[in-house]
Amino acid sequence: VQIPVRIVLVDTSHPGNIGAAARAMKTMGLKDLALVRPRHFPSEDATARAAGADDILDAARVCETLTEVIADCGWVVGASARLRTVALPTVDPRECAAAIWQRVPENRVAILMGPEQSGLTNDDLARCQQLVHIPAAPGYSSLNLAMAVQVLCYELRMCAPGREPPRGPESDAPLATAAELEGLHAHLERLLTESGFLHPAHQKQVKLKLRRIFHKATLDQNELNILRGMLTSLDPAKRQPPRSP
Amino acid sequence: VQIPVRIVLVDTSHPGNIGAAARAMKTMGLKDLALVRPRHFPSEDATARAAGADDILDAARVCETLTEVIADCGWVVGASARLRTVALPTVDPRECAAAIWQRVPENRVAILMGPEQSGLTNDDLARCQQLVHIPAAPGYSSLNLAMAVQVLCYELRMCAPGREPPRGPESDAPLATAAELEGLHAHLERLLTESGFLHPAHQKQVKLKLRRIFHKATLDQNELNILRGMLTSLDPAKRQPPRSP
Repeated sequence: VQIPVRIVLVDTSHPGNIGAAARAMKTMGLKDLALVRPRHFPSEDATARAAGADDILDAARVCETLTEVIADCGWVVGASARLRTVALPTVDPRECAAAIWQRVPENRVAILMGPEQSGLTNDDLARCQQLVHIPAAPGYSSLNLAMAVQVLCYELRMCAPGREPPRGPESDAPLATAAELEGLHAHLERLLTESGFLHPAHQKQVKLKLRRIFHKATLDQNELNILRGMLTSLDPAKRQPPRSP
Repeated sequence: VQIPVRIVLVDTSHPGNIGAAARAMKTMGLKDLALVRPRHFPSEDATARAAGADDILDAARVCETLTEVIADCGWVVGASARLRTVALPTVDPRECAAAIWQRVPENRVAILMGPEQSGLTNDDLARCQQLVHIPAAPGYSSLNLAMAVQVLCYELRMCAPGREPPRGPESDAPLATAAELEGLHAHLERLLTESGFLHPAHQKQVKLKLRRIFHKATLDQNELNILRGMLTSLDPAKRQPPRSP
């Protein structure tokens, strides 16, 4: 998924943050970076921190005014570390991403990030239709600039239409069926009755707890076969000397 | 909200990443950092990037083995940039956070982050009950280590019980009532009929569109009063010379 959202860094002091922001964008599938009056750019620090996202730095538009950078945008969001007194609707990054996906690709969208120390000015905020605030710990609420870009871009990706949650290659084997599980339980219970572990007095409770252990493990058929083999190997009646190699 | 989750950085190469991870944790309300075999620590780079989160660095536990760091943990999650062939349930950061909040504070929880270049080893992953994978762009999926910590800690905070979405101080004034809005519409329509802007032929459609503009703006009573004053000032019948100061 390419995510058609422009990230606009306004009056950035540290070029390292520009590079780190470019990397953050690229990991999430954004590529449209604009810089308004960066203090140092291009810069070796920016390139070093971009770590392979130099294509985004190379394509970045550098401008003197915010006006020209957002001229074509129908939806402009300002990132704000503080909850401002400016009367603008304020949302968290998740709501911000949802509102943006309602507006793209029909509209061009920009997210504005202010300078590291002070954030966006009131004049900048007056260009915005919405503020986005990243929830943070009271008393230490100031995310690094590129970290904030990472979180906002992450939410855009999480909210992308058609995204599927990750699936580990948990198993190639299908899950064990109820019948197979019953076979396992029966096998185990027989063995444990013979070994004297299961006493008639508390048998029922213990049996239920043993069942629960294996049900919580969501066994697949390979795992079930391993356990059956393990039980067979522990069965005195069937214990055989190890095969010679 | 203090978030009772331990972040464990394993075999970290760059001390700057340790500092940035500490800052990321602190912004989200985490404080329990553990370092397994950091290449350089303590380090000036770490302290510089921590930017005020030195308390977390100072309190960080430094260990030789992962075993001792997670010994007291009932739930251990491994961060994985790749979707591994290891057969472990794999979730995204949001599901990861939800699963963790189901287990704290009754259980101690750790999230393991591997070294920058290679990620967690299979031996490390064998200690985990779950993997967390941050969705990323195919072909450029490698988040910076501290960025990944930021995203995971952000989701823990978003998922914290009792969290309230941000509210801007949008307005101290209550919203304009339906009656006040009707007054505005009537005022505007009278003025625009007198000015000749509203023609009987297309009057109805235009009136509806004008209504919609003001309804979308979710006016409060201050804003409504400003608009009423504005309309009065534009009314030729009521236009008065500016007051002398």
